[in-house]
Amino acid sequence: MPGSSFGRLFTLSTFGESHGAGLGVVVDGVPPLLEISEADIQKELDRRRPGQSSVTTPRNEADQVEILSGVFEGKTTGAPVALLIRNTNQQSKDYSALKDVFRPGHADFSFLQKYGFRDHRGGGRSSGRETAARVAAGAIAKKALDKLGVSIIGYTVEVAGIRAETIDFQEIERNIVRCPDAVKAAEMIEKIEEAKLQHDSLGGIVEAVVTGCPIGLGDPVFDKLDAVLSHALMSIGTIKGIEFGDGFAATRKKGSENNDGFVSKDGKIGTKTNHAGGILGGISTGEDIVLRVAVKPASSIAKEQQTVDIHGNPVPITVEGRHDPCICPRVVPVVESMIAVTLLDCIQVQRSIRGGL
Amino acid sequence: MPGSSFGRLFTLSTFGESHGAGLGVVVDGVPPLLEISEADIQKELDRRRPGQSSVTTPRNEADQVEILSGVFEGKTTGAPVALLIRNTNQQSKDYSALKDVFRPGHADFSFLQKYGFRDHRGGGRSSGRETAARVAAGAIAKKALDKLGVSIIGYTVEVAGIRAETIDFQEIERNIVRCPDAVKAAEMIEKIEEAKLQHDSLGGIVEAVVTGCPIGLGDPVFDKLDAVLSHALMSIGTIKGIEFGDGFAATRKKGSENNDGFVSKDGKIGTKTNHAGGILGGISTGEDIVLRVAVKPASSIAKEQQTVDIHGNPVPITVEGRHDPCICPRVVPVVESMIAVTLLDCIQVQRSIRGGL
Amino acid sequence: MPGSSFGRLFTLSTFGESHGAGLGVVVDGVPPLLEISEADIQKELDRRRPGQSSVTTPRNEADQVEILSGVFEGKTTGAPVALLIRNTNQQSKDYSALKDVFRPGHADFSFLQKYGFRDHRGGGRSSGRETAARVAAGAIAKKALDKLGVSIIGYTVEVAGIRAETIDFQEIERNIVRCPDAVKAAEMIEKIEEAKLQHDSLGGIVEAVVTGCPIGLGDPVFDKLDAVLSHALMSIGTIKGIEFGDGFAATRKKGSENNDGFVSKDGKIGTKTNHAGGILGGISTGEDIVLRVAVKPASSIAKEQQTVDIHGNPVPITVEGRHDPCICPRVVPVVESMIAVTLLDCIQVQRSIRGGL
Amino acid sequence: MPGSSFGRLFTLSTFGESHGAGLGVVVDGVPPLLEISEADIQKELDRRRPGQSSVTTPRNEADQVEILSGVFEGKTTGAPVALLIRNTNQQSKDYSALKDVFRPGHADFSFLQKYGFRDHRGGGRSSGRETAARVAAGAIAKKALDKLGVSIIGYTVEVAGIRAETIDFQEIERNIVRCPDAVKAAEMIEKIEEAKLQHDSLGGIVEAVVTGCPIGLGDPVFDKLDAVLSHALMSIGTIKGIEFGDGFAATRKKGSENNDGFVSKDGKIGTKTNHAGGILGGISTGEDIVLRVAVKPASSIAKEQQTVDIHGNPVPITVEGRHDPCICPRVVPVVESMIAVTLLDCIQVQRSIRGGL
Repeated sequence: MPGSSFGRLFTLSTFGESHGAGLGVVVDGVPPLLEISEADIQKELDRRRPGQSSVTTPRNEADQVEILSGVFEGKTTGAPVALLIRNTNQQSKDYSALKDVFRPGHADFSFLQKYGFRDHRGGGRSSGRETAARVAAGAIAKKALDKLGVSIIGYTVEVAGIRAETIDFQEIERNIVRCPDAVKAAEMIEKIEEAKLQHDSLGGIVEAVVTGCPIGLGDPVFDKLDAVLSHALMSIGTIKGIEFGDGFAATRKKGSENNDGFVSKDGKIGTKTNHAGGILGGISTGEDIVLRVAVKPASSIAKEQQTVDIHGNPVPITVEGRHDPCICPRVVPVVESMIAVTLLDCIQVQRSIRGGL
Repeated sequence: MPGSSFGRLFTLSTFGESHGAGLGVVVDGVPPLLEISEADIQKELDRRRPGQSSVTTPRNEADQVEILSGVFEGKTTGAPVALLIRNTNQQSKDYSALKDVFRPGHADFSFLQKYGFRDHRGGGRSSGRETAARVAAGAIAKKALDKLGVSIIGYTVEVAGIRAETIDFQEIERNIVRCPDAVKAAEMIEKIEEAKLQHDSLGGIVEAVVTGCPIGLGDPVFDKLDAVLSHALMSIGTIKGIEFGDGFAATRKKGSENNDGFVSKDGKIGTKTNHAGGILGGISTGEDIVLRVAVKPASSIAKEQQTVDIHGNPVPITVEGRHDPCICPRVVPVVESMIAVTLLDCIQVQRSIRGGL
Repeated sequence: MPGSSFGRLFTLSTFGESHGAGLGVVVDGVPPLLEISEADIQKELDRRRPGQSSVTTPRNEADQVEILSGVFEGKTTGAPVALLIRNTNQQSKDYSALKDVFRPGHADFSFLQKYGFRDHRGGGRSSGRETAARVAAGAIAKKALDKLGVSIIGYTVEVAGIRAETIDFQEIERNIVRCPDAVKAAEMIEKIEEAKLQHDSLGGIVEAVVTGCPIGLGDPVFDKLDAVLSHALMSIGTIKGIEFGDGFAATRKKGSENNDGFVSKDGKIGTKTNHAGGILGGISTGEDIVLRVAVKPASSIAKEQQTVDIHGNPVPITVEGRHDPCICPRVVPVVESMIAVTLLDCIQVQRSIRGGL
Repeated sequence: MPGSSFGRLFTLSTFGESHGAGLGVVVDGVPPLLEISEADIQKELDRRRPGQSSVTTPRNEADQVEILSGVFEGKTTGAPVALLIRNTNQQSKDYSALKDVFRPGHADFSFLQKYGFRDHRGGGRSSGRETAARVAAGAIAKKALDKLGVSIIGYTVEVAGIRAETIDFQEIERNIVRCPDAVKAAEMIEKIEEAKLQHDSLGGIVEAVVTGCPIGLGDPVFDKLDAVLSHALMSIGTIKGIEFGDGFAATRKKGSENNDGFVSKDGKIGTKTNHAGGILGGISTGEDIVLRVAVKPASSIAKEQQTVDIHGNPVPITVEGRHDPCICPRVVPVVESMIAVTLLDCIQVQRSIRGGL
C-alpha cells in the first residue's frame, strides 16, 4: 500500500486498522534531545478522540499511546519514535451486516476494486481512525515547532453555512465545536443537535493560522509550501477542498486589489495586507499562514439510504453504529497535526540548503 | 533546490529559467513503444505559449521543443525522455529596473530570503515560464492516457465572477478565453479587455473533467488521489485553492444530500449522482473526476503599486513588460498536464500492486 | 534519522533500540491475500536469535514477534504490516561502564559526533539487534517470493580463511556454523571455539544463491540490481565488502574468459557459464544470482584493548558481556532477508513497467 | 525507467543514449553561489573521454558540455543545473550487424526481456557512455566539496594481477593507466598493449581515498555511508565488487587485530590504524575513507566468441568497433564522481539534522 508514509526528512509511516490490534506510527527525522512524554502526545490525542462531547460520536475509546522507541531518559535520541495506540472498543459485530454492501460516501466500493479484497470491519485502513496516528506524530512536531516559536491554531470557522464573525483564539477550546466565536458556536451546536436527531450529518469549514513561521519554507517548483500543505491536508479523508489566504474569493478581485504591497514593519520587511495567506511563489513570507479546508458532512449516517450490494442488487442501507453528526471539532487537531509535520519537514529541508556551506 | 521533481514512477524533473538558455524537463518512467513526435508536444505547448491572443501577454515566444533522448524511430524506448525549449525572446533589459525592488505578489522577497540570492531576470526559476516544461511532459502523459481511454478536458469556468452556464466541450477551443459557454466567453473577454486598458488583471476559476479514469487509482492514506492531484495542481504558481466534486459547497449540505448512492448502470456499479467528483476514500470510483482551481489575478500589472526596495525604503513600482490580463486560458493546458502526469503515475503505482491494469 | 526506511514500492521502516521497549518494522507494499502467520515470521527470527548455539552469543533472548496490523483472517490485506518484538533481556548494567569510553570497531564515536548525543546502552540504534526487524520483514518477502518460485539460500562459505569445498544445500542447517560443507564446518567450529577461549572473534564470508529469479529485475542506470542489492547488504553493520559472480577474481581474467556466452537451454536462452552471477547491465538474466559478502570479526571482544574516553584520555577497555565469537551463522538469515526484500521491491517496480509479471 | 535519478537532497537525473542526440544530467540541490564554469566540468569530462591514450578506445569524441540552466553570472543560483553533451561521433553502422545477436557480457539480452524492446545501437541507455553525465555532475559536486576541504583521489591500483606497491598521488595523472606507482604502471601498460593485440581486454582494481571528510556522514541503519557509496559505485556498469578499508582481507583477521583503537591525535580523537576505512557503524569517523572496486575486463572484444541470436540459434560473434582494452583509467573519474555526489548528498542530509534546532 504505497502512500502510508509522508514527508521527506521528517517522515511518518502509519499502520493499523480500525478493527485490528491497534494503530501506530513511526516518526523519523525527529530532532535529537527534544523533551517528549506520553502525556504530551496524549493531550493531543484527547482532542481528537471519540466520545468527547455531545456533538461527536458517543463511541468511547481511550486512545492511550505507548512510546515504543526513540526516547531515552525523557528525550528523543534522533532515532525513529514509534508510537502505538491499541484498539480497545472495536465492536466488529456492528459492521458484519455491511459485509456485502457498499456504504454511500465511503471507500468500500473503490477499495474493493483496487485491491480485489476488503476488510469490511468499519473501513479498515480507510477508517478515519487512522488519523489518530497522525495526531500522535503531530504532537511531536508541535513540540519541536514550539521551540522555534512556531504555533498552529486550528478552529471550526463555519458549520452548515453558519460563519464565525469574531476570531478569538481563547474561545476555541471553550466550546465543543471548537469555534472561536462563542455566539456562533452556540448556533452551530444547535444545528448539529438537530441533524443528530434526524440521523443525519453536517459539514463545515476548518481554518488554521500559523504564526511565527520562518521565512523561506517551501521550494519554488513542485514542492511549493502551499502544494505540500495541500497534499498533507487533502489526504484527510473527509476534506474536499482547500484554499490559502483569500483563496477562491481572490478570483473575483483585480490584481491591484489582491497584490500585497511590501512595507517596512519594525525594521523588518513584510506586507501591508495578507491576501496571499503568508506564501508567495510557494515560499513562506513570514506573514501568518492562513488556510481553510472544506469538511464534508460525515458519510456515516443512520438515516436510510439507497445503495447496491456487491452483486449490483439495489438495497436500502441504514448505517448503524455511533456516528459523528459533525466531524469538524475532531478534524481540528488532525488539521493542526498535518500542518505541523509538514512545516517541520520543510524546516529540515530548508536547513539542508542554507546550513552553512 | 529540492522539489524540481514530481512523481513516483512516472516522474518529471524540470530545469531552466525564464531568462537563461532555456527550459526543459526529463520525463522518466515513460512506457516503452509509445508513438511520440515533436509535433505531438508542440501542439500542447502552442496552447500555453504567450502571444496567442489579445487576452494573453503580447510577448511572442515560439517555444519550440526538441526531443533530446528516449525516442528511437518515432517510439519511446522506456529510457528517460529529455525535452528542451530554448529561450528566444528573453528581454533582460525589461527587468533590470526591478533588480532591487520587491514586486508585490511575486516570489522576489521570499526567494531572496530563502537562498540569500535572487536571479532578478523576470522571476528566474519562479517564473510562470517554468510551466512550459510541465506542458511538454504532460503531452507525453496525455498520449499514454489516450491509449488507455482516459481523457482530460480543462476550461475556464469563471472569470471575475462571470460563470459559464452551459458546458459545451466543443466550444472550449473556439474562443480565446477557453470557456465552454460561448455567450459567457464573450462577456469574460469584454471584462478582460477592460482590465487590460486599466493596466490591471483579472482572476478566475479553471475546471477540469477526467473521463474514462480507471477505478482504483490513488492510495488509501497519504497519497489519496485527491491529495496527489492537489499537490500537483497547487504547485502551479498562480493557483490559490482547489476543490473536488461539490467542494466547498458540500460543506453546506447534509450527509444524506451529499452521499452518492450506488446504482447498477449497464451492468456496472456506479453512483447515481457524483457530488464526490469521482473519488471516494482517496480512490477513483470510475465516475468522472471533477475539480476546480482558483486562479488569482496575475501579479504582474503595469498599474503603479506601493512596495519597498531591498533596504526597506518605500518605492512606487510599475511593472513594465508584456503581461497577461487574465492568465486563465493559458493555465488550462497546464492544469490538464499536471492532471495527466499525476494520473499516469497513479496508474503505474496501481499496476505495481495488481499487475496489468 | 533519515535512512530508517528501505525500498521503493515494497518498503521497510524499522524502529527500536537494543535496550528500549523493543524493535519493530512497518512493512508496506505487501501484496494482498498472502497467507502469513506469526509462526512464519518466528521461524526466521529463530535462525537469527542469540543463544542458539555454542558459536553464538550465550545471551538468551526469545525475540517473539507480534503482528500489529495488515493481517485479517490469516491473510494480508494490502495494508502495512507492523511487527513488534519486545525486548526482554536487556541488561543495561552490562553497559554502564562503557558510558564515556569509545569501544574500538563500534559506532560509539561517530554516532556521538553525528548527533551530539549517544544512547550508550549497547549500541542503541546502531546495535546489530536492529537486524531482527529486518529478518521479520524478510520473512514476509520470502513468503511472497516463494509463491513466485524464487528461493534464496545463504550460507557461511568461509571462516578465518577456511573455505567450503563442497556446496550441499541440505547440509547448511545441519551444522551450527551454517556451512554447506560438513567437513569444513567442523574445522570452522574448532577455530571459532579456539577464538572464543582467547576472548577474541573471527570473520568470514557469507555467500547467497538466488534460484528462480525472474528475468528483467533491476533498472539500467542507478538502480541496477547489483547496486540496490549492494545497498541492502552493505547496510548490515558487520559487512565490509560485496562481490557478484566472480567478483574480485574477475579482475584477473581476460574479457574472453569472463564473458558468458549465450546458449539455448531447453528452448530457453541462457548463458553457458555464469561468471556474471546472474546480472548483466544491472538486470537479472534468469541465471542464478550469486553474491558474497565479507563479514568482519565481531568488534565486541572481551580481550583488553587500548582506546580513549570522551575526553581523549587513553584507557584500556575490556568489553564485558556475552559476545558472538563469529557472527557469520547469525548473519546468514539477515543476508537472505535483505535479498528477499530487495527482490520483491524490484519485482513490483518491474510490474509497474510491464504489468503482471 | 525508474532509477535514472540518484540522491536524496543533492540529486542527479541523467538522460540520453550512446547513439541519440546526446547525454545529459539535471543536477538539483546544488548549493547557491558556487562558482562554476563549463571549463570546470570539461576538465573532468576530458579525463573520462574516449581517445585519450593508446590504452583506451581510439574512438574520438569531444564530449563538449553545455550548461543549460542554474548558473547566472558564473555562479550557481540554487536552481537545477542542466548539462548537455551532444553526441558527435555515433557511427550506428558499426552496430547494425548486432541487431539480432546477444553480445556476451552485455545487457542486450536482459534489457530486451525487461522492456520487450531494445535500442541496439551500441547499448543505448545501458552504454558506458551514460557515465559521461555522471562525471559532468560530479564536477559540480567536487567544486562544492573542495570549498569544504574534502578531496577525492582515485587511481588504478591493480591491472590483471599487477599491483601498485607505492602510492604516490603525484604520479597518477602522469601515466596513461592512472596508476600511482610509475614502475608498476609501465608493467600494466605493457600487459594492456599485449591484450589489445590479442583483441582481448583486461580487468583491474580502482582504489579511491577521501581526505578531509567531515565526521558524522551517513545514517545508522539502511543509509549507512558505506551502503550508499556501494549503491553509487556498484551502479557503474563495469564494476563487480566493492570493499571498504581492509574489506575481504578483514575476514581472515581476528577482532583484536581488525579493531582500530582510538587515540588522541593533535588534540583530536581519531584511530591509531584505519582497517575500517574511515567508516564505523555506517558513519564517517574523520579518518580517510578508503575503498576499492573490482573492474571486470571490458565485455566488448573483437575476438570471436560464441553466442546466440534472438531466436536462440548459435552464432559466432566478433564485436567490431573501437574498444577499450582496459577500462580502468577511464573508470577512475567516474568512481571519483559517484563518490563526490554521494558525499555532498550526505553532507546536506547531515546539515538537515544538526543545522541548529
